Amino acid sequence: MDRKFLFFIGLLFIADGVIAREAVGQRQPGSQESPWAWACRTGRGCVKVAKDSPVEQGDDMSNPTLSGCKLTCNTESVLWPKPRDAISLSKTLVAFHPTDIRISRISAPNSEVKSLTNEAFLIFRNVIRKGIPEAFRGRKQTARDQQRPQIEVQVSIVSGETRLEMTTEESYNLHVKTIFATAATPAAPRSTTSVSITAMSFFGARHAIETLSQIMAWDDTLGSMLMLTDANISDSPAFVHRGLLIDTSRNYVSVPVIKKIIDAMSYDKLNVFHWHLTDTHSFPFVSTREPRLALYGAYSPAKVYRPEDIKELVHYATVRGVKIVPEFDAPAHVGSGWEWGERAGMGQLALCVNKEPWPTYCVEPPCGILNPVNDNIYSVLSNIYQDMNDLFKSDIFHMGGDEVNFSCWNETTEITNWLKARGRKDNSKEDFLYLWTHFQNRSLEEVDKAYGNKQPIVLWTSGLTEEGHADKYLDKERYIIQIWTTGTDQSIAQLYRQGFKLIMSNYDAWYVGKYFDCGYGQWVGEGPNNWCSPYIGWQKVYENSPRKLIVNFNETFNQKQILGGEAAIWSEQVDGTTIEGKLWPRSSALAERLWTDPDTNWRVAEHRMNHHRERLVQRGIQADALQPEWCHHNDGYCFL
Amino acid sequence: MDRKFLFFIGLLFIADGVIAREAVGQRQPGSQESPWAWACRTGRGCVKVAKDSPVEQGDDMSNPTLSGCKLTCNTESVLWPKPRDAISLSKTLVAFHPTDIRISRISAPNSEVKSLTNEAFLIFRNVIRKGIPEAFRGRKQTARDQQRPQIEVQVSIVSGETRLEMTTEESYNLHVKTIFATAATPAAPRSTTSVSITAMSFFGARHAIETLSQIMAWDDTLGSMLMLTDANISDSPAFVHRGLLIDTSRNYVSVPVIKKIIDAMSYDKLNVFHWHLTDTHSFPFVSTREPRLALYGAYSPAKVYRPEDIKELVHYATVRGVKIVPEFDAPAHVGSGWEWGERAGMGQLALCVNKEPWPTYCVEPPCGILNPVNDNIYSVLSNIYQDMNDLFKSDIFHMGGDEVNFSCWNETTEITNWLKARGRKDNSKEDFLYLWTHFQNRSLEEVDKAYGNKQPIVLWTSGLTEEGHADKYLDKERYIIQIWTTGTDQSIAQLYRQGFKLIMSNYDAWYVGKYFDCGYGQWVGEGPNNWCSPYIGWQKVYENSPRKLIVNFNETFNQKQILGGEAAIWSEQVDGTTIEGKLWPRSSALAERLWTDPDTNWRVAEHRMNHHRERLVQRGIQADALQPEWCHHNDGYCFL
Repeated sequence: MDRKFLFFIGLLFIADGVIAREAVGQRQPGSQESPWAWACRTGRGCVKVAKDSPVEQGDDMSNPTLSGCKLTCNTESVLWPKPRDAISLSKTLVAFHPTDIRISRISAPNSEVKSLTNEAFLIFRNVIRKGIPEAFRGRKQTARDQQRPQIEVQVSIVSGETRLEMTTEESYNLHVKTIFATAATPAAPRSTTSVSITAMSFFGARHAIETLSQIMAWDDTLGSMLMLTDANISDSPAFVHRGLLIDTSRNYVSVPVIKKIIDAMSYDKLNVFHWHLTDTHSFPFVSTREPRLALYGAYSPAKVYRPEDIKELVHYATVRGVKIVPEFDAPAHVGSGWEWGERAGMGQLALCVNKEPWPTYCVEPPCGILNPVNDNIYSVLSNIYQDMNDLFKSDIFHMGGDEVNFSCWNETTEITNWLKARGRKDNSKEDFLYLWTHFQNRSLEEVDKAYGNKQPIVLWTSGLTEEGHADKYLDKERYIIQIWTTGTDQSIAQLYRQGFKLIMSNYDAWYVGKYFDCGYGQWVGEGPNNWCSPYIGWQKVYENSPRKLIVNFNETFNQKQILGGEAAIWSEQVDGTTIEGKLWPRSSALAERLWTDPDTNWRVAEHRMNHHRERLVQRGIQADALQPEWCHHNDGYCFL
Repeated sequence: MDRKFLFFIGLLFIADGVIAREAVGQRQPGSQESPWAWACRTGRGCVKVAKDSPVEQGDDMSNPTLSGCKLTCNTESVLWPKPRDAISLSKTLVAFHPTDIRISRISAPNSEVKSLTNEAFLIFRNVIRKGIPEAFRGRKQTARDQQRPQIEVQVSIVSGETRLEMTTEESYNLHVKTIFATAATPAAPRSTTSVSITAMSFFGARHAIETLSQIMAWDDTLGSMLMLTDANISDSPAFVHRGLLIDTSRNYVSVPVIKKIIDAMSYDKLNVFHWHLTDTHSFPFVSTREPRLALYGAYSPAKVYRPEDIKELVHYATVRGVKIVPEFDAPAHVGSGWEWGERAGMGQLALCVNKEPWPTYCVEPPCGILNPVNDNIYSVLSNIYQDMNDLFKSDIFHMGGDEVNFSCWNETTEITNWLKARGRKDNSKEDFLYLWTHFQNRSLEEVDKAYGNKQPIVLWTSGLTEEGHADKYLDKERYIIQIWTTGTDQSIAQLYRQGFKLIMSNYDAWYVGKYFDCGYGQWVGEGPNNWCSPYIGWQKVYENSPRKLIVNFNETFNQKQILGGEAAIWSEQVDGTTIEGKLWPRSSALAERLWTDPDTNWRVAEHRMNHHRERLVQRGIQADALQPEWCHHNDGYCFL
C-alpha cells in the first residue's frame, strides 16, 4: 500500500466534521497538491515522506498531515512545558470549528473567580484564532452548524483566590473525552467533546486552559482546527517562583510590548514578572506621591508608566496567571530622577550622579547612589513604597541591594562625618557595611509601614550576602536571596545552609541578555566578549536545574528553600524593538525547567521546543528561530 | 544667564514658522514642562543639562532641544553614512510642516527617470512622516498655509539609466539654502528653503534625497519638524558593491519582511541585495519553466516567491537604489525540490539528498549535491537561469560554488563510471575537481545562453579558488570571487595578485548571523560557541576596511579590483521574525565602511551610530539597541 492511499484514509478519518472537507476545497487556487505527507517514525518523530513512496517499517501514517502528526506522534504531544504528574493522550484527532468551543459551566466560590475564568476563556479563544491564517478566520456560520463537532468545557475551582501568591496552588486536572455519533443517530451532532477542568485555584484552571490550547492546532493541509479526541492530564509545577526579570530603566519598554511578554509567559506557564522598574539611567515610574522622580528621571514624557498603565498591567497579568513583582533597587542603581533634592531644599538625595571617571564609582555609566544619611530620602522612599503597594499588591517585594560601591560614600564628607559621629572613623569596609545596614533597616521600616505587614523581601546577592555578612546583617525569615553569581559559587551553598530561601538567576545560564550582555559585544569599549559571554543557547538554559545545583553542593534538596528561578534580561543592549527575540524561545526552556524540572535532557525536548517556537510565532510572539524549518519537518535528523 | 532663559530664546529662534509654536501648546495635557535642555558640549557632543543650572564653559545652547542639538552639534550632523567628499552645514534650523515640502522641478533625459524620481520623492515624504508621532501626523492644513516655511526641491539628472549596474555613477550634490522673510515683507512666506539636487544618475539623486531626509528631524519638544537652513554636500561612494546577503532557504523570509530590509538598506545607501534564494533545505523560488522545483521544495505552498512577487521586489528595490542579485548555488547546497527526477524519468538529478551520517557528506544537515553527469540537470538549470534573467535582470549573477564535498560523488557509481570513461580511474581530488569544472563550464554555458551575453559571474571562495586552482580552472575576466574566509587568509592576496575582482565577506567581521551562527549557540549539538563566535559587535563590522585588508598583505590597493563587500546573514538560526534586529544597526556600520571608508575609527562614529539607530527605529525598522538611551542623551559619557 503506498502512502498516498493512506493519506486519503487519514484525511477522511480526521475530517469527521464537515468543516475539514469543506476547507480542503479552499486551498489556494491554482496550487497543486503537495507530494508530501508526514510519517510518525519510530526513534525519530514526524518525518516528511513522499506520498507516492512505499511505507517504511516503523512509519505510522495514521495522521499524515504535519499538524496531525505533531499532535499525536509523541507521548507528550507538543505540550510545553511538559506536564509533570500524569499524562495519557489519544492518538486520534477530531476536526472542529473554533466558534464551536463553548464554556458550559464554571463552578467557583465567588463571582470574581468566575469572571477571571470567563476572561481567561476569551483569551484562549483569541489565542486559538491567532493560529489560524487570516483567510480562514471569522468565516460565517452556516446552517450545518448543528452537525459540527461541539466542544464543551466545564471548569471547577475550589478556592476563592484572585491574586497569585507564593502559597497559591497551581495544580490542575484536565480531562478530554470525545463521543462520536453513530450512523444510527444521524440527526445528532457528529461528535461531542467534553472537556473537564478541575483545579484548586483559578491559576491552576488557567494553566489547564493553556494546556488545552496546546492539544489543538490549525492544520494547513486540511484547512481546519484539529484536537486530540481524548486526554487525561494531572499537572503541577516543580517550583512556585518561575520568573523573568525585565529592566525598564536602561532602556524603556512600552506597555504594549510588556503585554506581549506577559502573553508569552502565559503560554509557558511562567508566573512571575519581576519588574526592575528604575535604575540610575532613567526613572520611568510615575509616583503619584513623588511626581518629580519621573519628571526629572524619565527619558521623555512619553516613556513613563503611569498609575493607570500599571493597574491595567497588573490585571492583564493576573488573568494570564502572572504576578508582577516590583523591584525598587537601592541604595545603588539610582541617579536619574533624584536631582531635585537641593532645588527643593531637601539636600542631596543622591550622590555622585553621573560622576566620572565612572569605573571608580560604579560598574557602568552613569553612576549614582542614595545618600543614606539624609533623612529626607526615607520620606521619598516611603512614598515610592506606598505607591508601589497601591498599584502592584504583590505578596513579595524586591529591594534590590545590588552592586554597592563604597568609593562615593567614602569621598562624601556628609557621610564620613555621620560615621565619625557614631564612633566609626576608619572608613573601613565594615563601616560602610554598617551604613548600608542602617539604610537597609531604615528603608525596610518604610516598606513595612507602606505594606502594613511584614512581607517577604528579596535582595540580590551582594556585599551584604557574602560569607559572614548575610547571617550577621540579614534576617533569614524576612529575606529571600536572589542568586546572580555562577551556579557553582560557594555563597549559594552557604546561604542555603544558613536557611535563606533562594531564587536562582545564576548568570552562567539564566542571564539571557545581561549587561555587557551575554554573548553580545561590549557597549563601552569594543571588546568582542563581555563578562558573561558566550551567548547562552536554549540547551544550556534548559539544563540549569536549581535542584541539581543544590545537589552538586552535596546538600539535600529542600523544595521549600528553593523557590525557583528567573531569567534576567538587563536592558543596556535591548529595548522593546528586539526584546521578544532575545527572550523567546530561551525563556520557554527556563519554563519547562521550572515547571517540570525533568530528569531528561534537552535532546529529548528538542522536537517539542522547535514546535513550541513555531506556535509562539503563530501567536504573534517574535521568538527567534533555532533551526532551519527543515528540522521541524524532519524530527530527529538535525542531531550531531 | 541661566539655561532656562537661553532655552526660550532658542525656541523662538527655531520656531520661525507658526507651526512650532502651535505645536508646543499641543504637548500631552497635564505633562509638566521638562526641567532639561541640551547643550552642545565641546569634546563630548549633545549633553543633557538642567535648564535652571548656569551655562558651563564650552556649552553651546543655541539649539537646546534634543533634536535641534543633534542636528547641529557635529560637523557631519547626524548623517549616516557620512558623506565622503565635501560637507558644509549650517548651525541654524528652520521649522516646517512636512506637507510644505514640494518637488518643483525634475530635469531628466526621459520619462522613466522622472517617474522613478517622483516615486523616490513620495517614499521620502512617507519616511519623514514615519518619524512623526502618530498624534501629530496628518494635521489639517490651515488658512495660515501661505505663512508657513516652504521647502522647494529641484532635481537634475544627467543619465537615462533606470537600472543600477556596477558602472552606474552614484555621486550627487545637495545644496540647501534658506531665505528668511524680513519684517518689511509681512505678506510673503516666513521663509523659503530651496533644495537643489544634481546627480549623474537617478541612483545618485535618490541618495541625495536620502541625505536630505537626514538633515531634518522631528522635534518632540517643539512638536515640529526641524531642518538645517543651509547645507552643501558633495558625495560619492568608496565602493560600488555594498551589499547584504539574505538566505531564504534555511528559513523562509516573507515578502513584506524583505521589503523592510530593502527599506533599511536604502536608509544606509547599501545597494546590493544578494539573494541566496535556494539551498538544500528548501526551494522557495517558483520557476515558471520548472514549477516542480518549488512544488517539491518549498516549505509550504505559502512559503514561496512567485514571479509577480519578485517583479514587485525588483521594482521596489530599484526605486530605493538597490539592485537584487540572485544566487543559484550549485553544485552543492541543493536537495529539496530536486526529488522528482526519477519520477519524471529523468534519472537522479540530485544525489545523497538527506543522506546520513550527514557529516560524511556535507557541512550541515540535510545533504545533497547535483548529479553533474546527468545531462538532464542542465536543461533544468537552463530553465532556472532563464526565469532568473527574466525576473531579476541584474548585471551580475551569482553561481555559488560553495562547499563542495566529494564524498557523495565518490560513492556514486554513475559518477565514478563517468570519470573512468574519461580515463580518470583514481577518484582523486584532481578527478573530482575535473568533474566540478565540467559542471561549472556546462552550467556557465547555460547561464550565457539564458542571459544572451557574457555577464560577470560571482563565485564563493571554495576548492575551485584555492591556491593553484583558481588560475587553472577559472577565467579572471569572467569570475568575481566573493571572499568568506577570514580577512587575513592568504588566498585573498593570491586571488588579488592573480587579478580577480573581489567582493569581501570575510566571516570574522561581516558574517552577522552566520550558520552555526556567529555568537549564538549551536543548532546541532549543544556547544556554547560556534565556529564563527563570538558575536560581532558593530565596532568590529565598522573597522573592517577592504582597503586595509589589501594593504595589510603588502599590496597596493587597486580600487577597480575590490568591488566592495557584503554582510551575510545565513538563516539557519533566523527567519523573518527576528532578522531585522540581527541585521541592524550592524549593517549600518558596514554601510559607512563601504560608502565612506573613513580613516577614523568607530569611536568617532559612535554618536552618529546611536542616533542613526534611533532613526531606524522611528522609521519602523526593528534595529537592536546598542546602549542605554542615557548614552544617546549624553554623548561622550559612555566610553571606557
